[in-house]
Amino acid sequence: MFTILPTKGFIDQIDGFFCDGIHAGLKPNGKLDLGFIYSDTLCDVDAVFTLNKFQAAPVKHFQRYEKGFKTNFVLINSKNANALTGQSGIDNIDKVFSSLKFDLTNPIMSSTGVIGNPLPVEKIVSGANSFNLSSKNGDNLSKAIMTTDAYPKTSLYEVKLEDGSSFKIGSVAKGAGMINPNLATMLCFICTDAAIPQEDMKELLEANSHTTFNAISVDGDTSTNDTVLLLANKKSNTYNKEAFKEALRLVMHDMAMLMVADGEGAKKAVAFEVNGALNDQEAEIAAKALSNSLLVKTALFGEDPNFGRIASTIGASRVTCDENTLVISYNDVIVFNKGEICFDKAQEAKASQVLKNDKYKVICDLGIAEGKFTAYGCDLGYKYVEINADYRS
Amino acid sequence: MFTILPTKGFIDQIDGFFCDGIHAGLKPNGKLDLGFIYSDTLCDVDAVFTLNKFQAAPVKHFQRYEKGFKTNFVLINSKNANALTGQSGIDNIDKVFSSLKFDLTNPIMSSTGVIGNPLPVEKIVSGANSFNLSSKNGDNLSKAIMTTDAYPKTSLYEVKLEDGSSFKIGSVAKGAGMINPNLATMLCFICTDAAIPQEDMKELLEANSHTTFNAISVDGDTSTNDTVLLLANKKSNTYNKEAFKEALRLVMHDMAMLMVADGEGAKKAVAFEVNGALNDQEAEIAAKALSNSLLVKTALFGEDPNFGRIASTIGASRVTCDENTLVISYNDVIVFNKGEICFDKAQEAKASQVLKNDKYKVICDLGIAEGKFTAYGCDLGYKYVEINADYRS
Repeated sequence: MFTILPTKGFIDQIDGFFCDGIHAGLKPNGKLDLGFIYSDTLCDVDAVFTLNKFQAAPVKHFQRYEKGFKTNFVLINSKNANALTGQSGIDNIDKVFSSLKFDLTNPIMSSTGVIGNPLPVEKIVSGANSFNLSSKNGDNLSKAIMTTDAYPKTSLYEVKLEDGSSFKIGSVAKGAGMINPNLATMLCFICTDAAIPQEDMKELLEANSHTTFNAISVDGDTSTNDTVLLLANKKSNTYNKEAFKEALRLVMHDMAMLMVADGEGAKKAVAFEVNGALNDQEAEIAAKALSNSLLVKTALFGEDPNFGRIASTIGASRVTCDENTLVISYNDVIVFNKGEICFDKAQEAKASQVLKNDKYKVICDLGIAEGKFTAYGCDLGYKYVEINADYRS
Repeated sequence: MFTILPTKGFIDQIDGFFCDGIHAGLKPNGKLDLGFIYSDTLCDVDAVFTLNKFQAAPVKHFQRYEKGFKTNFVLINSKNANALTGQSGIDNIDKVFSSLKFDLTNPIMSSTGVIGNPLPVEKIVSGANSFNLSSKNGDNLSKAIMTTDAYPKTSLYEVKLEDGSSFKIGSVAKGAGMINPNLATMLCFICTDAAIPQEDMKELLEANSHTTFNAISVDGDTSTNDTVLLLANKKSNTYNKEAFKEALRLVMHDMAMLMVADGEGAKKAVAFEVNGALNDQEAEIAAKALSNSLLVKTALFGEDPNFGRIASTIGASRVTCDENTLVISYNDVIVFNKGEICFDKAQEAKASQVLKNDKYKVICDLGIAEGKFTAYGCDLGYKYVEINADYRS
């Protein structure tokens, strides 16, 4: 038995964690662009990283540390991804850390922004040396790591165990053009004072990735910088694996859903629920095909219940399916039922009403077997084009 | 030895073929929406069809005929795909043909348009019964089969053989939102008076698909209706396999390139040329990843030489690659060279100039081995969203 309580505030509410964000001159107009997470004791750390073959310099830099290393500092910049920058990109990270005035142990860097530009070392060093490591300003940190995000993404929970002990777990993250997960850097930093054993950290990170960040395809087709980092300072002296796993799942789900809802230019957060597939793998293939289909996304933007595009996308995904067992509905409004088109004016009007909502489900029951998966996506409109046609400028 | 001469005109220039297009009331405002191809002798026929699991009724109807059947009539409608319409969709095609006043042998139907609407049998029958089978109006046919196409797509060649004999081969096609090949119906009807043996037809259709229609991903991720049909009436009494194969390749390449150039809202036709891959398969994976990447397409629309998105898309495609052997260029302007960023102001200006063109190459040499493939795509802009947000209306 345990209880998980959503809690107001940022990761700085967790005992021993400090953070802040400043303007170091990477973004124009005084926008925050450099932040840190500092722990006053050494933390166990683990992470899951991008599958992109061109891993960014900060990802390679992290992997140079010995397995099971401890750290007390994470430096995060936006506007420059330090990707495709080769050995000099890694050397620049060392330059940054060797120029900082603080006493740091195995410092970690994380970057997001434009690929293929050298890291502005001087700006970052002078900015970072102005940090106050004893400040607790999660709000500034959450803004400093944003790129095209419309709003900051944070989450915090307190977990109370049967014996009266408790621990906290919280997160700060940035998403991006989730309308096309391809290349959309997502960074997620999770802090906890739970006394989690080192060996549980990677296991629970990976166990929860599949239904959260993977469900928005971030890992499937992924940027050069994607990172989910877990820092544990163990200050609570308490831990329960089941409770921690569920709390971690909630934190990661919160972040994933915020990323979808904040897809570049997106107005709709849509759950693509595929049931009745041959197996869970085929359900996932079909659900992700739907969440990635341009023609589906533009129809959702147009609030057009164009279920033909839904069916055709499933068929194009080549999973086992049959139009005589297929059922398609928007929330509870069935528009196609086992070979029968249910789309008279009345039904079309009901479906159109569903599509006017900010959040709804597109449900496809393939009627083949028991496989199921839910992918999360959003609509695609003019704003997405506007943002991405001139992202560098 | 043979010569292949591009020729003015339509498929109706080929001996024995007749065609026309009319307004049958499927499209608004008197637009042409129903057409036919008629041959005054029986033709050998073969086709390659969509790989979509939900094949449209006309595709299933064709496949009911016995292998090696002959035909003299193809009926083509736009605005309604007759897809997801089950057995009644096939029955409706039989209803149409049984209601026509003409003497037809194994008539074929082909449809494109909205999925999941019953075929308007009466309109099509009354329209088709007004056809004049002796008319030669390829211009009208090419317009009648258009959906979101901005312009008609036709091609015609005369092939002269050493012995002085000659034959013709021509085509009429319609494309669609090639910016996202997913669901974009493409129909291509190829007519010839070459005396091609039945057994060569499918072989040569498939042999030429890979570098033409497959290179624009139409077969990889495909609509419910995609069809490439080859009709041969043999009236020229001459044939040369090598010459026919090359002429067929030219016709199919012409149609594929016209489809890319006419991508919904597209202003740029871009060749994504991947060289130096581990093998041709990996080159194809990388090239198609580029031609399908939203972030690449929107950057091209913005005329932004954002080569970081090019590199990251290749890395995300998981093919064998290494930034220290990778070379990226826009036409002959190298922007990334084996780990070195070549992107000072001067070089960026040169690259930007290339991106102002209507047609150019994005060339990625992976520097791994000899594998190569060229995929064809286009940019993605506001117009694409506008077209697809209200396609049904």
